[in-house]
Order: sequence, then structure tokens, then C-alpha cells
Amino acid sequence: MQFLSDNTSTASPEILAALAAVNHGRVHSYGDDEWTQRLERCFGEFLGTAVRVFAVATGTAANSLSLATLAPPYGAIFAHREAHIETDECGAPAFFSGGAQLALLDGEHARIAPETLAQALADHPSVNVGLHSVQPAALSLTQMTELGTVYRPAEIARLAQLAHARGLKVQMDGARFANAVAFLGCHPGDISWRAGVDVLCFGATKNGALAAEAVVFFDVSLVRDFELRRKRAGHLFSKSRYIAAQLLAYLETGLWQRNASRTNALAQRLAQAAAPYLLHPVEGNELFLRLGGERRERLRAAGFEFYDWGPPHRGEARLVVSWDQPEGDVTALAAALARL
Amino acid sequence: MQFLSDNTSTASPEILAALAAVNHGRVHSYGDDEWTQRLERCFGEFLGTAVRVFAVATGTAANSLSLATLAPPYGAIFAHREAHIETDECGAPAFFSGGAQLALLDGEHARIAPETLAQALADHPSVNVGLHSVQPAALSLTQMTELGTVYRPAEIARLAQLAHARGLKVQMDGARFANAVAFLGCHPGDISWRAGVDVLCFGATKNGALAAEAVVFFDVSLVRDFELRRKRAGHLFSKSRYIAAQLLAYLETGLWQRNASRTNALAQRLAQAAAPYLLHPVEGNELFLRLGGERRERLRAAGFEFYDWGPPHRGEARLVVSWDQPEGDVTALAAALARL
Amino acid sequence: MQFLSDNTSTASPEILAALAAVNHGRVHSYGDDEWTQRLERCFGEFLGTAVRVFAVATGTAANSLSLATLAPPYGAIFAHREAHIETDECGAPAFFSGGAQLALLDGEHARIAPETLAQALADHPSVNVGLHSVQPAALSLTQMTELGTVYRPAEIARLAQLAHARGLKVQMDGARFANAVAFLGCHPGDISWRAGVDVLCFGATKNGALAAEAVVFFDVSLVRDFELRRKRAGHLFSKSRYIAAQLLAYLETGLWQRNASRTNALAQRLAQAAAPYLLHPVEGNELFLRLGGERRERLRAAGFEFYDWGPPHRGEARLVVSWDQPEGDVTALAAALARL
Amino acid sequence: MQFLSDNTSTASPEILAALAAVNHGRVHSYGDDEWTQRLERCFGEFLGTAVRVFAVATGTAANSLSLATLAPPYGAIFAHREAHIETDECGAPAFFSGGAQLALLDGEHARIAPETLAQALADHPSVNVGLHSVQPAALSLTQMTELGTVYRPAEIARLAQLAHARGLKVQMDGARFANAVAFLGCHPGDISWRAGVDVLCFGATKNGALAAEAVVFFDVSLVRDFELRRKRAGHLFSKSRYIAAQLLAYLETGLWQRNASRTNALAQRLAQAAAPYLLHPVEGNELFLRLGGERRERLRAAGFEFYDWGPPHRGEARLVVSWDQPEGDVTALAAALARL
Repeated sequence: MQFLSDNTSTASPEILAALAAVNHGRVHSYGDDEWTQRLERCFGEFLGTAVRVFAVATGTAANSLSLATLAPPYGAIFAHREAHIETDECGAPAFFSGGAQLALLDGEHARIAPETLAQALADHPSVNVGLHSVQPAALSLTQMTELGTVYRPAEIARLAQLAHARGLKVQMDGARFANAVAFLGCHPGDISWRAGVDVLCFGATKNGALAAEAVVFFDVSLVRDFELRRKRAGHLFSKSRYIAAQLLAYLETGLWQRNASRTNALAQRLAQAAAPYLLHPVEGNELFLRLGGERRERLRAAGFEFYDWGPPHRGEARLVVSWDQPEGDVTALAAALARL
Repeated sequence: MQFLSDNTSTASPEILAALAAVNHGRVHSYGDDEWTQRLERCFGEFLGTAVRVFAVATGTAANSLSLATLAPPYGAIFAHREAHIETDECGAPAFFSGGAQLALLDGEHARIAPETLAQALADHPSVNVGLHSVQPAALSLTQMTELGTVYRPAEIARLAQLAHARGLKVQMDGARFANAVAFLGCHPGDISWRAGVDVLCFGATKNGALAAEAVVFFDVSLVRDFELRRKRAGHLFSKSRYIAAQLLAYLETGLWQRNASRTNALAQRLAQAAAPYLLHPVEGNELFLRLGGERRERLRAAGFEFYDWGPPHRGEARLVVSWDQPEGDVTALAAALARL
Repeated sequence: MQFLSDNTSTASPEILAALAAVNHGRVHSYGDDEWTQRLERCFGEFLGTAVRVFAVATGTAANSLSLATLAPPYGAIFAHREAHIETDECGAPAFFSGGAQLALLDGEHARIAPETLAQALADHPSVNVGLHSVQPAALSLTQMTELGTVYRPAEIARLAQLAHARGLKVQMDGARFANAVAFLGCHPGDISWRAGVDVLCFGATKNGALAAEAVVFFDVSLVRDFELRRKRAGHLFSKSRYIAAQLLAYLETGLWQRNASRTNALAQRLAQAAAPYLLHPVEGNELFLRLGGERRERLRAAGFEFYDWGPPHRGEARLVVSWDQPEGDVTALAAALARL
Repeated sequence: MQFLSDNTSTASPEILAALAAVNHGRVHSYGDDEWTQRLERCFGEFLGTAVRVFAVATGTAANSLSLATLAPPYGAIFAHREAHIETDECGAPAFFSGGAQLALLDGEHARIAPETLAQALADHPSVNVGLHSVQPAALSLTQMTELGTVYRPAEIARLAQLAHARGLKVQMDGARFANAVAFLGCHPGDISWRAGVDVLCFGATKNGALAAEAVVFFDVSLVRDFELRRKRAGHLFSKSRYIAAQLLAYLETGLWQRNASRTNALAQRLAQAAAPYLLHPVEGNELFLRLGGERRERLRAAGFEFYDWGPPHRGEARLVVSWDQPEGDVTALAAALARL
């Protein structure tokens, strides 16, 4: 039974149906088709404001292309030390931006506290040394975070306010944005543009799509640069309809919410069983446990797959519920955790 | 009736069926799944030699990532002036490689003549100025070419021999490789590794896939660098099975050949009708015509969509037959061409 | 006797004297010193308009940093095929800009004709393919050119007008700017800002300095980006006074003119002797001769050092007069040429 | 009286004399001259082993070019959080390498403890996530450190051993290498190649040169790549003799030692006066003091110039003794410190 990652899942039937539904007729390529063009209206309605939207196929592409649009090659991007852009994208932000550097912040449960950001901005080397240092350019927030927790709307608003006051743009890595909205029960706008986010990377792949992420610009002045960067990075798809169709189905059929609600709820069941080992509040579909090596082995021997997490000596584990996780897997895992 | 490009086409039913067929069960992500792992055997059989294969979703990604693996940031990549990497990839080779420069060669019908390459290597600034100039690093050949023509096996062999003698690696942009094989009636190995190609970018998207290209390494020493470059460029797909499934279906069902043979044959019918206007031999699924502005307008008024081609003042046009082009479109276009 | 290049020369006594003259007292580093700060007034007077000026130590740094400020990573920089940035800077423009590509133009005697630029802009792939191609961003002119010829003020004005009309900025590689001014007898502003140049790379190293080039911005909006790029490229000198002092001495003592006039005049003497072999008009301190292999050998056997030029099979040679060339060298070479 | 930085100083008379001494005759450019060619023998004798040496003009160039040679674009470079490459080079390592990322380590007094490096290597994300993370590639050590302390030979040896065992190369930022040797009284080889350093950036600018740093390769296999990177970064000087002459004079006249010994000794006098405020042991020519805002102001009012250091709220200050610091300045500062 597999709890490795939500990206081990299949594509939802709604997604495959959407691919089949657009599979007729020759249409203009590279996004000049009715489906791609419907994206902006669709996302506008979802988010409650006018937006520009661009589809890409991976989260790394979404994050790095958007950050490259926000940060010059000599820019600093503030992010949590656990951010995916730091730990799991093989240096992509520096590659796409031509050298921008991450300024890593600490913060409990992978959330950046406003005071931490304020202090980091106040203490940034550029304050003392001017152009000898990289220049603060962007703040990247992950929602839901890499440790399965969720920023509250007011936290985001405060962070964005601090960033904007210093001239930084705010990007959101929303690979699991749907889980965050489902957890908070808020409007999607409340944790994006209304809270000051300038660009949202809205993920669908982990939550039921085949391969589709949307880069949503609330600050539309940045769009031309983004489009050229996307093209030259090989992330502009000729048969754009197939990626647009996924995103449309994801939003228009409510798939985003159904899947996210289900995985969040299943994770809650596991959280109860795993209470003694929990490292972080379970606010989405991920659990982080301090099990120690011996318990990890027992769990694996019992037939559960999951990743070790963090520095090896800490004996931590990550377990993720996928949208297509059989309920029986969860029941079995909960029982196994209780037995540990 | 649309003859704009073969990338305006749908995905073949075989491709959608393949996606559905793998859409079950949670499997390891990022390529550690049975389908992705079958790719190398499948391509090995297709090409007649052991290979390493990596799937990406766009031709720009395939070309640029492979070239970045072959050329250092101060490298020169020899290519035809009409090559897609020069005209249609927004500077991607320089981006991915960190600065490598294209050395553009002339050549009739978008084919590089061996003497042209020999002369260019002999005359390259690096011969006189050493490290003051970029250093010859790779030769990129497009098969079938950007002007719809096809290199013969012996031509490729001679070009690769010249390149290797000077220490250059040979990359092939095979976005329409299937059309070239169908035209030549040769073994796929004859125009790739047996002729000296080190890395083949084997396209499927234009010829029936949804979004799938394979980067095939005959020189396997380069593979580790490629994998890391692919990851940090956002071109490693988490749900790798869906891109692998396309490539498997494309090869294993013979789709590559059926589609390429059909479009080649339909293009031949058009070539006869368009004989007075042909700029280049029609050896695949593309026609390039010198129509002049007035005839282009008449053709458009008659309901045919196609792209202007080349410098505006030349009045040229490109017409491309897609794998799903209704035969009626071709009949109608042939008639319209004959009437011009 | 050496006619290899003007960069084989010594530093003028005025330059060494200037270094000694500023060698007292501890002063703020990185340009916050009286000499560096005097640069802008000094260049303003020289050029007849307000400017921002930044000193670097090599021509490659000056060219590449200024071009990176003008062209985005997906930009195209139009330049003559013989331009130093193409042939002798090892791909530096692509490196500094993060990928910008040179669009190479032909033109007699290394000069770009306005019609050639107009045609290239009209025919640029971006006209047809939009963002699939690199985007025209800058025009780079070399004055004096790499083949020893000089643009007239009206030619530059016409080229800059064409460039600006299309939204391109104009950069000038003025590694031998002094020779051009000396040849034309014009005001330095006539071939720079008055003719539409936005950024001038003003060389001093080849004409008597030790290592000093000035990047002069007429379009001052670009300056902040330039400064950060210069710093992160390692081209901001801590002991800035020593490079500023060279440039001040070069302008304030009239050294630029004395040295350029002398080398131009000596080259004219050689031009008369070499008339049968001249490939290009001699308008500065460089001669390009079609000698053939045998005559080249005889000249070398007679004790003259010079570089072969161009593709080996053409048998061409370049001879350059340095500011410190003994007159006897020139007399001897003229005689030897006459005897060939 | 100025204690801002050792780069506010003049050039030593020996350096200007050396420039004058080589200022005769036209010689081959770009390093093909007798002085540049003598560099390797000279450094070989100084360091006690065969080396390849390349001269550049700034410390940022030396550090970044050498690191780009050691680390691929997807590489991680381990360095202390206070390292100059992190705080004062505006992202240069990422620029030159095409994206390599710094992995920052803590450590008392700006020294990395072997256990810290061992832990960081063991805990590096690449251990868990493979190619999803940047790949450990190099260790950069600063000797003397940015906080004025000095690694002992055995510390360096242990750190290099850990690095090599994991396949990392070791680079040393030796902007103040001379001060470290003078402090330790050791052989220069003891803290470089004998301790496992692969590439040493040996600074001269801060300690009496005008603008000269040497990149010294003990691992000579890396040299060709370095040379091409240096050229395309605009750091290859045409009139190479003038930078070589500085380095030769610096070593051959013993200038490095005279100047470093003097500034170290003067700093010791200050250290005694400043004992109550010292943040770090004074092992070279730099003092770091926790003075608080009020004492800083009093010191400034008394006529002393120095930089605030670190985060503004900490009230720290850095004071640096330059090679040409009048002894009276030091006496006065010591008295003022005692009075605080």
C-alpha cells in the first residue's frame, strides 16, 4: 500500500474524459484554441478577479518561470528553508532566472512568520553593502506548505504587505493549493490576490490531473516576459488544448475540491492514529512522523510504502494520501500506526 | 481546411487508448514505473542497438537539453540556417547550455552539404584565434529537414564523420524522423547511430502523439548530466507513465509508420498539383511554394489555412499535411492548386 | 618588428604618470573616490552632453555588460559578421545576457549598410513566428570597424534611426573609437549620441592605456541594472582610482588624439606601399592584405610579425600599427611591402 | 583616519615600480609574454609544488571563475554563511556557473567545523531525493576568514578530506591568504595543496597590489575549462604583463610577507585596546567589535572611519588595518578605543 506521494496517483476519470472530449478537429497550436482561451475566464471566475493564465506541465516549470519573471539575475528570493524550490527542484530558480539566489528563512512547520521575514529584510546584506549583494526581489510562499500545514489568510496578507513595502513581488507555490482551500474553507481569492499574491502557481497534477499546472498572474504587467521565457524553456506546448482541457475539467467539474476534500479527510483519520509521532499539524493530505528507524522498518514490513524524510539520523517519515487512495489502505495504515 | 502545421492535429486514438490503459494503480513517480522502464528496450528494438532513452514533452526541450549536454557554455553548435533551433526556439539552445552559440550553415533545401561543413570547420575563427572564439562542440542535423527534405544515410554518415574527426558530437533533431524513415524506406538505425548520430531527438507529437518526444542516447556516457539538466529545467514529469505510454504505443503499434506513410503519400498528391510552385523537393509531409501574394490570397479565400513562410517580400507559403487530415481536404487543395 | 596588434603595446608614459599621481592616501573603494567621480564630468565635456560613465578593464567586459543591459535573455543583437563580439569574445554576449543571440549581417568592409539592416529587421523570423523566435533588442556597431574602416556620422544616424524605429537600442563597440574620430576629424558626439548611440564602449587600452575602457550611457535609465551586472561579473574594481586615473589622463591630456593620429598617419604610409594587396580602405591603424601564403612567408622571413587573418585558404594578413611603434618599423615594413 | 577596508589602500611602491619596469617593447598579448609565463615557476616555488596559474584583476572574478570550473550548473557549493561569495559578490557564483547554489554552513568565527561539514553532507537533500536536488560539488573555504580568523592546517586538511571523500573539490578564497600565512608562520603549501586544496584564489590587491589576484590550480586537469570561462567573462587581459608584473613583484620581493606582517602586528595592538568589545579572535588585520550604536558614533566623531557590520540592530563594527596605514592612525585608534 503506497503512501509515497500524491504524484504516484493516476489521473482522475474526469481528466481523461476531458482529453477525449477535445480530441477532434485540427485547431491552431500553441494556445490559440478555444480551450486555452477559455482558461482565463474560468480562472477568473474561480478566483474572483481578472487574471492572465498560462498552462505548463510541471510544478518546477511553474515555479521557476514565474520566479524568473519576478526576480532579476541578481535578485534574492525569500523562501522557507523547506520550500520545494530549495530542496527538490535541482536549482531551477537560479537556472531560469540566470542566477537569482534563494534567501532561506526558518519557521515552525514550514511556515514563515511575519517577524522572521521582517527581520530578514532588515538584516539583508544589501542594507549594508548595497550593490555588492544580491537585491531582494521576491517572496515565495508555499501553500499548503511542504510540511503539510496551511497559512491563514491574515498571515499571507501580513507577509505580502511586508514584501510589497520593500518592493518585493509575491509568488505562491500552490502545488497543493486545493488542499489548502479545502482545509480553510475559504474563497480561493482569500489566500491569493486578496492577500497580496502577485503570481499563483496553481497545481493540478498532484490532485488528479495528468500533468497540468497553471501560472496565474494577478499583476498582468509581467506577462509578456513570462511568455517569452516559457517558450524558450520548452514549456509552451504545441497541442495546448490537452493541457488546457485538464485545467478546465479540474475547475469546472469541481474536481479540485472533491479530491482535495477526500484526501484531507483521509489524512485526518491517519493523524488520529499517528498522534504520538506527529511532527506537524496535519492540515492537508500529508503526515510527517518521527518514528525512528525501527518503527519505520516495521511499518514497511507490514506492507506500507513511504519516504524517509529529512536528515537520515532523525528517523522521520512522510506519508501522503493520494486522491485515488483506496479507503482500505487508509484503514489498514491507521491500524498499523495504532499498533506501533 | 487547415494545412497550417502537423501540430494542429489531434492525438491518435492509439495514444488516448494507451493513456487509459496505464491509468490504474499508484506507481512510483518520476520514471520509476514499468512503462518508463520499458522505453529503453522498446527503443532498442526499434533502433537495433542498446540505448538510453528519456521522455520529454516538447521538441524544444528535447533539442535544447540534448545540445546542452553536448556543448559547453562556450561551445559552437553547427546547424543549418533554417534549423528549428535557430528560427523557432526563442534562443533555447543558448539558454539551456548557458551560452553556446549556433554557427549557421547554408545549404540547398535546408540540407547541409558535407563540403559546407568541412569548410566551416576549417574556417572557424577558433582555428586562428584559439580560445578567443567559441569552440566547435556539436553538429545538429534536422531529419526530416525544416524544408521538408530528407538526408540520405550516406550524407549523414559523411557529415558525422567530419564532425567526429574534429571532436564534435552529433545531435539529430528528429521532430519528423518518422516521415524521413517512411520516405527512405530504410531502417531507423541507418539514419541515426549507424550513420554516427550520438543523440537522437525522436519526435512523436507532430505525428500522432499528444505530447511526447524521446531523447535517445547512443553515447551513454552523457546520460547523468542530461538527467540533472532535465530535472532542473522542469522537464522531468512526476507522472511519467503517461508520457512513456504514448511513446510505447507510438512504436509498438506501428503508429509512427502508419501516420508518417499516410501524410507523406497525401503530400505527394499535393506536390503533383503544386509542381509549378515548388521550392523544394517534397520528401515528407510538407510543401513549400512560391505563390506570390495574390495566389496566396486566392487560396485563402478558397478556404485553406496555411502559414506564410520566410521573408515577407518573397511571397512563399508552407502547407503541411497532418496525420488526421481528411482525404477530402487534400483532394480539395490539390484541385485548388491546379486551378491557380 | 611587430605589427600583430595594438594591444601588444606598452602603456603611454602619461598613463603610468597618472597611476603614480593618484597613489597616495586611503580613499573609499569601489568608485567612491574623487577620480572616479570626476569621470562623468570629464566624459561629459569630451562628448558634449551629460553622461553616466563606468570604468571596466577589458573590451569584452564593456561590450558584454552593456549588451546584457540592453537585451533580454531572449533578445537578438544585430551585428556585423566580423564584429569582435561574434568572432573574438568566446560567446560573451550570450553569457552576460543569459542567452541573447547575435543576428549576423553582411556588409562590405565590415560596415553594415542601412538597407541591410532594414531588410534584416523586415525579414526577422519574429515577424512571422512571434514569440517562437528571439526578439530584436539591440544593434551593435563597431567604430572603427574590425576591418579598419570607419562609419560616417550620417551612416550611423541612419542605422540608429532604423533600429530605434523598431524599438532596438544602439550600442557602439568603440575599442578603436579614437582612431575613428581622428580619421573623421569630427566631434566625438557626432558619431555617438548625436547619431543615436545609446551606449558607447569607449576603449583606451589599445591606444595607450594599461587596461581601461569606459562604458558611457547616454540613456541613463539603464544604469542601475548595469551596475549590478558589473558587480556580479567581477568587473567592479575595489581600487577604482587606478582605472579612473587612466581614463582621465587619456582624455584630459589629449593622449587619445595624439596616439590615434600618429597610428593613423603611420598606417597611411603603409597603405601606399601595400596598395596592390589592400582588401579594405585604410581609415585607421589597421591594414588587411591579400598576400597569399608565399608573400606572407617572405614578409615574416624579413622579420615582421603579424597575424594571418580570415579563413586559412584565403592567404590574408592583418597588420596593425601600435601607438608606440617605432617609426623605423614602419619605414622598414613599407619598404618590404614595396619589394614583395 | 580610515579603517574601512584594506582595499582603500594605495598600491605599494614595489608594485608601481614593477609596472614601470615592464613598460617597454611590444610583446605578445593575452599572456604570451615572458612575465606571465614566469608566473607559474614563481608560484611553484612559493607554494612548493608544480602549479598552473592564471591572473585576474578582482577577487570576485577569481572566486567565481574557479568555482564555475569546479561545480556544474546543478552543483552545490558548501561555504560558510559569512563567506564573501555569499554576502558580497552579488550572486556571482551562480552567474558564472550557470546556476550552482551555495549551501551555507554555520560555524563560530566564520570557520566551518569539520563536524558541521560532515553533518551537512550526510543531511544534504541529495541523499534522500537524488537528482531532484542540487548535487554537492565543491567546498569553498576562506583563509583568512571573513571575520578575521585563520584556519589551522589540520582543520583544512580534515575539511578537505571530508569533501574529497564525497567527491567534492576544494576551493580556497585567499583574498587575505598572506595574512593567514603570516599569522600561522607556516609554509604556504601547508594551508593549500598539502592540506588538500584543489584551487587557490590568491589575493594581492588588498595587501599592496593595484589589482591582481592569482587563480592557482593544483589539480591541473581543470585548466582548459577555466581558460575558456575566463576569456568569455572578459577577465583575460590583453596587456597581461601588467597584471603578471604585480604578482611577480608581490612574491619575488617578499612584499606579501612584509605587508601582511605589518598589518597583522598593528591589528594586535588594536586588539589589546579593544579587548572588551572583541567578537572574534584577531588573527589577521581585521577587528570585529560589538560597540553599540552610541560608541560607534563617538568613535566616528573622533575622526575614525569604519563600516557598520552585520544586522543593523546588533551595533557591530569592522575595523581593518591597511598595509599603508600610518602608525599614528593605529596609535590614535588604540587610544580612542581604550577611552570608550
